[in-house]
Amino acid sequence: MATMSRSGYGSDDEDSTPAMRRLRRLSLHLLQPSDRPAPEGANSLVPAACAGRRRAGGLDADAAALTAYLRGRHRATQDRLYRFFVERPELHTPVELPMAAHRELCFRQMAALVREAGVRPLSLMADDPDEYFAVMEAVGGLDISLAVKFGVQYSLWGGSIINLGTKKHREKYFDKIDNLDYPGCFAMTELHHGSNVQALQTTATFDSVTDEFIIDTPNDGAIKWWIGNSALHGKFATVFARLILPLQGKGGEPADMGIHAFIVPIRDLETHAVLPGIEINDCGHKIGLNGVDNGALRFRSVRIPRDNLLNRFGDVARDGKYTSSLPTINKRFAATLGELVGGRVSLAYSSVGILKVAVTIAVRYALLRQQFGPPKQPEISVLDYQSHQHKLMPMLASAYALHFARRYLVDKYSEMKKTNDEDISADVHVLSSGLKSYITSYTAKSISICRESCGGHGYAAVNRFGGLRNDHDIFQTFEGDNTVLLQQVAGDLLKQYQQKFKGGTLSVTWNYLRDSMSTYLSQPNPVTARWEGEDHLRDPKFQLDAFRYRTSRLLHSVAARLQKHMKTLGGFGAWNRCLNHLLTLAESHVEAVILARFIEAVKR
Amino acid sequence: MATMSRSGYGSDDEDSTPAMRRLRRLSLHLLQPSDRPAPEGANSLVPAACAGRRRAGGLDADAAALTAYLRGRHRATQDRLYRFFVERPELHTPVELPMAAHRELCFRQMAALVREAGVRPLSLMADDPDEYFAVMEAVGGLDISLAVKFGVQYSLWGGSIINLGTKKHREKYFDKIDNLDYPGCFAMTELHHGSNVQALQTTATFDSVTDEFIIDTPNDGAIKWWIGNSALHGKFATVFARLILPLQGKGGEPADMGIHAFIVPIRDLETHAVLPGIEINDCGHKIGLNGVDNGALRFRSVRIPRDNLLNRFGDVARDGKYTSSLPTINKRFAATLGELVGGRVSLAYSSVGILKVAVTIAVRYALLRQQFGPPKQPEISVLDYQSHQHKLMPMLASAYALHFARRYLVDKYSEMKKTNDEDISADVHVLSSGLKSYITSYTAKSISICRESCGGHGYAAVNRFGGLRNDHDIFQTFEGDNTVLLQQVAGDLLKQYQQKFKGGTLSVTWNYLRDSMSTYLSQPNPVTARWEGEDHLRDPKFQLDAFRYRTSRLLHSVAARLQKHMKTLGGFGAWNRCLNHLLTLAESHVEAVILARFIEAVKR
Repeated sequence: MATMSRSGYGSDDEDSTPAMRRLRRLSLHLLQPSDRPAPEGANSLVPAACAGRRRAGGLDADAAALTAYLRGRHRATQDRLYRFFVERPELHTPVELPMAAHRELCFRQMAALVREAGVRPLSLMADDPDEYFAVMEAVGGLDISLAVKFGVQYSLWGGSIINLGTKKHREKYFDKIDNLDYPGCFAMTELHHGSNVQALQTTATFDSVTDEFIIDTPNDGAIKWWIGNSALHGKFATVFARLILPLQGKGGEPADMGIHAFIVPIRDLETHAVLPGIEINDCGHKIGLNGVDNGALRFRSVRIPRDNLLNRFGDVARDGKYTSSLPTINKRFAATLGELVGGRVSLAYSSVGILKVAVTIAVRYALLRQQFGPPKQPEISVLDYQSHQHKLMPMLASAYALHFARRYLVDKYSEMKKTNDEDISADVHVLSSGLKSYITSYTAKSISICRESCGGHGYAAVNRFGGLRNDHDIFQTFEGDNTVLLQQVAGDLLKQYQQKFKGGTLSVTWNYLRDSMSTYLSQPNPVTARWEGEDHLRDPKFQLDAFRYRTSRLLHSVAARLQKHMKTLGGFGAWNRCLNHLLTLAESHVEAVILARFIEAVKR
Repeated sequence: MATMSRSGYGSDDEDSTPAMRRLRRLSLHLLQPSDRPAPEGANSLVPAACAGRRRAGGLDADAAALTAYLRGRHRATQDRLYRFFVERPELHTPVELPMAAHRELCFRQMAALVREAGVRPLSLMADDPDEYFAVMEAVGGLDISLAVKFGVQYSLWGGSIINLGTKKHREKYFDKIDNLDYPGCFAMTELHHGSNVQALQTTATFDSVTDEFIIDTPNDGAIKWWIGNSALHGKFATVFARLILPLQGKGGEPADMGIHAFIVPIRDLETHAVLPGIEINDCGHKIGLNGVDNGALRFRSVRIPRDNLLNRFGDVARDGKYTSSLPTINKRFAATLGELVGGRVSLAYSSVGILKVAVTIAVRYALLRQQFGPPKQPEISVLDYQSHQHKLMPMLASAYALHFARRYLVDKYSEMKKTNDEDISADVHVLSSGLKSYITSYTAKSISICRESCGGHGYAAVNRFGGLRNDHDIFQTFEGDNTVLLQQVAGDLLKQYQQKFKGGTLSVTWNYLRDSMSTYLSQPNPVTARWEGEDHLRDPKFQLDAFRYRTSRLLHSVAARLQKHMKTLGGFGAWNRCLNHLLTLAESHVEAVILARFIEAVKR
């Protein structure tokens, strides 16, 4: 949130510390100039070039309409939150802040949002996900740490209650999570297992005598690691653990029922003391997001009531009997993880917001900054250089395209939440994996290019690229490592491909593949076949055809390669042998989806 | 500098704070295991996989020989400095440190290096540049801020005295710069002019009455900006300014003699108070390198004696008459900037060191970290995944290739310093531009890939990717923006190309172009012409031919395009129209140079 004064350097401001003067000078250099007359004195910096460009094209009216179209129906909500925080400077995150103070500030920011600005995030998440994501983006404008801590509290801890629990859990926890009386954590990742959730080792053993589960960390590798909100503020954690039922396995052995989620109180509600049997260590400094208190949790025979099992997809009765509407461990695991898709949607959403901020700063600066020029003529804006245009303009166009892709993703997600339709769910699962991966990788690369394109001034902390990059970096990893998520997309495409040959139908987003694949062998490559000059190359229909043809071709060829290697290497080996091919396929598909949404949006 | 204890988690260590335990756990996960027996207790983490791999190939003996070959003749110097700093924990930079404390620590680190470890960096720079760069790399292992502050003090401030001054300057300043009695700055960049040094606006006007120069900052845009060592510690600054001789221009106007360098005292030698007429503001927090005190300098009629002109390439006599061994402003400017090439050499050198650190961390972790695997079998190392190999293995190979390229660069630079040969100087100028640009861009991208490939644990601050990336980031910008430097390479190639057609000779590094270009029109593309299967594709001679053919082709084609556009757009417009083509040409050339050095080194 830019809070830099716009008053000109050289004016008689009350605030004349060196730091403030520096800020003011830089702000003149970087911010869009206002329409105020220039400050007195011939020595002032004159940022006229950018202002002139802005006015020259008469774009202001269009820009307003475009902004309204882009920002959609929750613009008022976001503006209200921006105003709320602008008026509370004590809640702004300074450039330098020790980790401990940053964490406390971050909690105060969230408390102010809930208790003073009156936002009820969990209710929004349940009733209007679209507005929920808009709120998350707005609080990310104050501090990305806040957006992530907010995401832990509501998307993850709150979301686990809503999506994996049943009525009894909602009644007991919903309101107190919503009003922040119950800060909580989402304890899935372990030191030795991040991506491979199915191999988590923490156990929850049912004790039929006391009607309790006993939570245990069997070894150091099973310590819950990176758990946000746990080092300082969490009162509860949703712990993912293998459900063990003693005596119910073969030959009276314990039966391992697979991964389930359990509510585990970790701190005393009154004294905030860590509860017995629980050890919490601090994960310490991170590259960014140091306002979030990540911790490591170890459990030593921690007993919780049977009711604390989040039992939507599987339950244990008083007598220890297991029941579930789903027949196998794998199906229950898929259903459990499937409900957590909201986290990925929110990351894709926030990442687009961060991309917009970075591109805006870089493009504005490129207009203002002048360097070199033709002999004996004024210097030209660096944006006039071909190399600079090639760096920034595709990024600007992509920011629009990705904006519409996230719009589509959120609409689908909202529809899924409303209808519980299975086809839409499957679609959202893969779409969110693909877009989260593609968008966060793109944004991460772009922030670095933006920094570099702003030269030395891009390296000043106040100009934000460092903070944006450091905070955003982990978006590529959490809620699913990008390389792993792309494989899920590829796997789904292959499943659809096989179903096609078995005569099945394709899911909604993939519909285009049916057409592409049907004609694949008969139809020539659109790039070579239909070349008709510039008009043709600029035709969106042709462009989309080319993108889809590429995907179809990659899908067809990787399926053949997999089949070939399967015989000698087995399924896992064949997959690994073709891994780069598969990742290219997934990216190609995601790009085709993004382009389709972009073309649709431009038409509107 | 890794100072983490290697003792195992679970052992009865004296130091049992949560932070130390966390560090120990992580160190087990990330560091190469020692040959000590595993610590007691079944709960300990077992990092056997990596150790097993290391031993399996019997590579240890070869590794020692390779290390000796790679680290070269200054290994002992580096090891001595590592030991010196390891034994001084109070000089280690902690993970969290406020900027003000970091700056003071950084000065103490440098003072200890000079006054306790007895290093004389300026003498090394003058007598044995190769050892100087090795020292710089070693201190960068303690803190990259220290390496950069060291570079400001010695390569830049000291280098300006040695390279731009004459005997009188050496006598007065050399020893006191070397022993750190005279900390100093290099004040070239201004707020409005970074890359375009020739357009700097600060003036130095000769006053023949008092036999002094008067230094002035004519407007805010001319404030010297980002000047390292100036916010806190500098006593002097080498200021780049336009030399103005009153009454000597046309019609009695002042004559602008172009950019010259002047020694300007900025703080009192006794009291350290900022001197009259000088205003120093703090540039504040940066993305990284916060141990370096960058400041902004403004001069208001600051008078310095005539002797303070660094007069190697141009001098002013007592009567105000200007003399120079070089005939034009442009030649003097080129000679002045040409002497500063050492800064670029040191950045290319240090950047390779940083790349090695990042790649080592990532590869070790990829061997240790296991995730997923074939059904019912143990999980496999993430380095066994094709996608991971494609991320890290080319980077590892490049680290070797770039190591040999920097070796070559330093040798050439040392030769230049010894011989003052003009051809070698021209060669070093372009070679250092190309390698600095290529290497720092490559390292910057690689650090991000390394972080991502280490997943969540890569995001922990102790694992260094964040610090490396933030500190290294600006290597792409300072001492010449990478995009600008590549254009110098392209410009030089074109000059050589034109000379060839005029019958001139080519400079040393470019020799291959003579052969390539001579046969360009008659000889077929080596890639299509000589395809003979795997053996041929692996033949270094073929590979180098292919790289050189690409450069020749790009050079030939861009020369034709430039000529075409020149007619309608003029020189500047034509250059800009072909800018991406030119940058590709420059990169292609640098890659051919790197490959040639790599092949040569592998042969040895």
